[in-house]
Amino acid sequence: MIVAMQERAAEEQIDAVIDAMVEAGVSVHRTTGSSQTILAGVGPTANVELSKFEVMPGVERVHRISSPYKLAGRAFRPEGTAVDFANDVKIGGQQVAVIAGPCAIENREQIFTIAKCVKAAGAGFLRGGAFKPRSSPYAFQGLGIPGLQLMHEAAREHGLLTVSEVMEIAQIEPMLQYTDCFQVGARNMQNFNLLRELGQARKPVLLKRGIAATIEELLLSSEYIMAGGNYDVILCERGIRTYETTTRNTMDISAIPVLHKLSHLPVVADPSHGTGRRDMVAPMAKAAVAAGADAILVEIHPNADKAASDAAQTLYLDQFEKLMGELRVIAGAVGRTL
Amino acid sequence: MIVAMQERAAEEQIDAVIDAMVEAGVSVHRTTGSSQTILAGVGPTANVELSKFEVMPGVERVHRISSPYKLAGRAFRPEGTAVDFANDVKIGGQQVAVIAGPCAIENREQIFTIAKCVKAAGAGFLRGGAFKPRSSPYAFQGLGIPGLQLMHEAAREHGLLTVSEVMEIAQIEPMLQYTDCFQVGARNMQNFNLLRELGQARKPVLLKRGIAATIEELLLSSEYIMAGGNYDVILCERGIRTYETTTRNTMDISAIPVLHKLSHLPVVADPSHGTGRRDMVAPMAKAAVAAGADAILVEIHPNADKAASDAAQTLYLDQFEKLMGELRVIAGAVGRTL
Amino acid sequence: MIVAMQERAAEEQIDAVIDAMVEAGVSVHRTTGSSQTILAGVGPTANVELSKFEVMPGVERVHRISSPYKLAGRAFRPEGTAVDFANDVKIGGQQVAVIAGPCAIENREQIFTIAKCVKAAGAGFLRGGAFKPRSSPYAFQGLGIPGLQLMHEAAREHGLLTVSEVMEIAQIEPMLQYTDCFQVGARNMQNFNLLRELGQARKPVLLKRGIAATIEELLLSSEYIMAGGNYDVILCERGIRTYETTTRNTMDISAIPVLHKLSHLPVVADPSHGTGRRDMVAPMAKAAVAAGADAILVEIHPNADKAASDAAQTLYLDQFEKLMGELRVIAGAVGRTL
Amino acid sequence: MIVAMQERAAEEQIDAVIDAMVEAGVSVHRTTGSSQTILAGVGPTANVELSKFEVMPGVERVHRISSPYKLAGRAFRPEGTAVDFANDVKIGGQQVAVIAGPCAIENREQIFTIAKCVKAAGAGFLRGGAFKPRSSPYAFQGLGIPGLQLMHEAAREHGLLTVSEVMEIAQIEPMLQYTDCFQVGARNMQNFNLLRELGQARKPVLLKRGIAATIEELLLSSEYIMAGGNYDVILCERGIRTYETTTRNTMDISAIPVLHKLSHLPVVADPSHGTGRRDMVAPMAKAAVAAGADAILVEIHPNADKAASDAAQTLYLDQFEKLMGELRVIAGAVGRTL
Repeated sequence: MIVAMQERAAEEQIDAVIDAMVEAGVSVHRTTGSSQTILAGVGPTANVELSKFEVMPGVERVHRISSPYKLAGRAFRPEGTAVDFANDVKIGGQQVAVIAGPCAIENREQIFTIAKCVKAAGAGFLRGGAFKPRSSPYAFQGLGIPGLQLMHEAAREHGLLTVSEVMEIAQIEPMLQYTDCFQVGARNMQNFNLLRELGQARKPVLLKRGIAATIEELLLSSEYIMAGGNYDVILCERGIRTYETTTRNTMDISAIPVLHKLSHLPVVADPSHGTGRRDMVAPMAKAAVAAGADAILVEIHPNADKAASDAAQTLYLDQFEKLMGELRVIAGAVGRTL
Repeated sequence: MIVAMQERAAEEQIDAVIDAMVEAGVSVHRTTGSSQTILAGVGPTANVELSKFEVMPGVERVHRISSPYKLAGRAFRPEGTAVDFANDVKIGGQQVAVIAGPCAIENREQIFTIAKCVKAAGAGFLRGGAFKPRSSPYAFQGLGIPGLQLMHEAAREHGLLTVSEVMEIAQIEPMLQYTDCFQVGARNMQNFNLLRELGQARKPVLLKRGIAATIEELLLSSEYIMAGGNYDVILCERGIRTYETTTRNTMDISAIPVLHKLSHLPVVADPSHGTGRRDMVAPMAKAAVAAGADAILVEIHPNADKAASDAAQTLYLDQFEKLMGELRVIAGAVGRTL
Repeated sequence: MIVAMQERAAEEQIDAVIDAMVEAGVSVHRTTGSSQTILAGVGPTANVELSKFEVMPGVERVHRISSPYKLAGRAFRPEGTAVDFANDVKIGGQQVAVIAGPCAIENREQIFTIAKCVKAAGAGFLRGGAFKPRSSPYAFQGLGIPGLQLMHEAAREHGLLTVSEVMEIAQIEPMLQYTDCFQVGARNMQNFNLLRELGQARKPVLLKRGIAATIEELLLSSEYIMAGGNYDVILCERGIRTYETTTRNTMDISAIPVLHKLSHLPVVADPSHGTGRRDMVAPMAKAAVAAGADAILVEIHPNADKAASDAAQTLYLDQFEKLMGELRVIAGAVGRTL
Repeated sequence: MIVAMQERAAEEQIDAVIDAMVEAGVSVHRTTGSSQTILAGVGPTANVELSKFEVMPGVERVHRISSPYKLAGRAFRPEGTAVDFANDVKIGGQQVAVIAGPCAIENREQIFTIAKCVKAAGAGFLRGGAFKPRSSPYAFQGLGIPGLQLMHEAAREHGLLTVSEVMEIAQIEPMLQYTDCFQVGARNMQNFNLLRELGQARKPVLLKRGIAATIEELLLSSEYIMAGGNYDVILCERGIRTYETTTRNTMDISAIPVLHKLSHLPVVADPSHGTGRRDMVAPMAKAAVAAGADAILVEIHPNADKAASDAAQTLYLDQFEKLMGELRVIAGAVGRTL
């Protein structure tokens, strides 16, 4: 860490900062410039709260020099991580993965129809939500574990893997046998208790970026899972909140190459939530693959307009099939398969 | 709801929208202008997903006309709500309330020292956190229920009321006997399951605005609690995320008069989280009272620099005493007491 | 326009709003619901300041129903606009155009070297700045008109067209003979005097989105140019300011399909300013083409690190040649050429 | 400046960075840690483009240590600056100044009526716009210099000082004799040519923060004026663009104490533009004074609803008189007069 003192900082102020740094466990190197004193702290600073130093008298700025995440950082595995699933399927390999399915699992017929379409179109993952806490207490709340059983059955019948969102620690255990990959939603990105428990689970975790989370915060959250020993984390960009209101969120496509530069973890893009509009899903899915996404997550439904939730951003099955063909060409154009 | 069709919308497109509106349960009034057709939907639209209509072919824009919140709206109680506590204490009345205490309850001595200071300074509420899920698994995680017991004892000894954050449904029951007001943190503002349960609790709820939540979303979340029959909701502005990085968050002082205009619920301001910097707490607390805040929530600690969490934004006890004096003058200047 | 009154609005308040609407030149249709009165204003509302109605007593919300831009709207030319240049070159046609060059024209050798490379790589437009008002008064301020002459000479020698930024009305006239397309920078997007003058010029205008401008504001600014009779406007997405700080701006790739939906004007993407980082230019250029961009604008320099300005986001010539090859493949993948 | 290298940076990469730092004119101190190398650059770095270093191979982060502004920094005049006007009036002194007037000067009667009210209410400054480039070419464009003459005459008759916005360099000279303080609007905050010219003018400059400008950028723009020798700069907070849409902008009240901490320049608050709503002007003006603002700028009009521009945010004269009384009490509560 570096503490830059104000130009006219008094010697007692400088001493107080040095004492505080030493107390925080770092060794201090002092550089006294003609106008400004700089204090460099060397040592383990990951758990030091820098803001504490920022409000000390005489301090101008404080900078963290070393990256606050270690396990998630690119330097930890310069060659990159591919998360392995059954049947030799990977996310993060040469092949771009596709994860498709309804926002919510509604009934047997719905999920089996979708599973068939997902397989036929060449995608490898079936997704669907079983727990749907809705803003209205009168709206559909999801089928729960029986829904997951249905999805699991449909997936296995068609040789697909399953992805589903876990919302509470208590759901981890019952979900385990029906889920190949846990999804952590944007609202839970900083639910540290949940992340810690998932660090103990031996299943891959797809971690969505919070609607107002920075890239650094996303990586810190992934670090939390990895600290428990679960290194199979997949990061997901799904749109951030900005001042623009034409789209529900602003999908940060540049987060894809930035995450690849900063981290070794694979990156998934979710153009359904990223845009909130069915007519924007295809162009943004193509943009994401062109920018290097390792997987695409997309909401589909045979009767999209009547979907129990997220109707506006859900593709019809024929739209999805068409999109798969287009993505295959883009993947080829960036040297990958799909 | 109003659906404005595109200028060259085809008659079939218009018919399809009308059908969908009727199906959603509203009666449709059609106005055919020289260039544009407008469809007005009259009826209960609170649970209609408007985004569904936005992506229909030929649609230009969709507007919700009636407010999506009813119970929280100003029209529900034009005279305003004052939340009643024991000892004739109110939040939302003529007197500006002050809620002060440490970020985390650390030990008996700490919380008793603080309680004494809070009382002496003339504040009515003691706050402190018992559950502290931290970004680092090695950091202090809070004392749990025993911590709450300590705070409750300290509060009762000094005639104070207690406020503490509830993070999970399972904590509601054990917290009940030690807590006079539940706080819902910014990260849980849209934890609808938790809000629903608190709607059943017969204790006031202080609901913090999420870091990227709009004022409308905050009111929708309060509606969720009120729908369960618990009308004692206190709204809290605590800073939003913007592009500005000098302060940790940008405290939206204008949210105070806006909330008072849109809703009958009392409004609390939290300048500690709102700014993240000890030296900004006093000016922003004064600004909040000048703008009409019904209460101020502030973090204090006898040894602020060594506080187990949030050290940078925590006031020393003497700073708090000084602030109380200043706030009393500002309260008087806007026709209130403190 | 639609004015939704508050639930308990008094009859006098409703009458006052109706009077104000009539005075503003619209005919009013009143719908009295069981709980709420709705006033629909029909007529020319493009110049009506809606905010005036929002603050009238008893008003809940005001909505503009008709689009505030007409000439820029998709309905004006459903088939889309291709801006024509000399030599049968178009922006907005089947071929994706590429506009490349240095941030600033520095000297004869520099601009001729770059022109040769631009041509060899297959791009059609040479860009370069002649006026460079810099934050430091000691920094390089641009070569002015003599710089434009150099660029024009280099472009003509290689059969290229030129794009250069105009910053003041007084520059339009002297720039005319050396410039095939005027660029309006992000900071001037709402310099309405300048836009009005460019509406009189008979040269295409490339209009950059302001760093905090909404898509609607961008279209309103283009309307301003078109109102003068100059319909050859090209819109440019170049990154917006958000809370994320890893990239200098957040490039809003979704603005490309959104603009294509709302408007008939061609859309250019500028990944150099959009990201501010050389290593992010290629992935974001590819994403933009995949999302449907009609042209790419990119900063290049034979000695990028020593460029007089924007060094960090400027590509070396060999990086540009490589990018052209990659973009050609992506263009093919979305059914276009480059 | 500090360059933190990546953990596995190669020795050649480190050497290349050192060379580039030396070339940029700084002396380099190298610290080789167990995992990371840190390069500290000492010397004049104000004009060094740090982003250039950020994209060099092997670099993790680059930090500017010394403040990029010197003349505007608090250290330059720790005691603070009060800008002096005629008649012993100051902005930045013990007395809170009030600047009031219409958005646009419309006619003799209007500006004389307003001047009389401004004086009677106890304010010292009359403001009004003479140049009004509007989004619609058919809207009122301002009276120009004759309007300024009217305002100047009205001001002098009532012993007031005048503030008016300058939009182009060519307006400075003709405005000089009628204007006691130049205002630079939010859209021109980074019009460096205009700022440079105002640095030569010997009149105070009220510099508005851009709608998406950081506090640091505002201070850098003020530095530009001061570099020309004009130290009479007054900074103005007038609302920033955020994701919240209930208010037109989010007024960043915390910018007031932050600017006072970072700079010696006086700070004005503009609650009219800051909120865009007449009913929010009073609470936000009070909040600004409570937070330490040195002056308040407010739009008023005898017939606010019919004002030629900014009608929704303009106060009626009686509302202004009432506000003056309230502000006087708040000023007293923070130890100032008004």
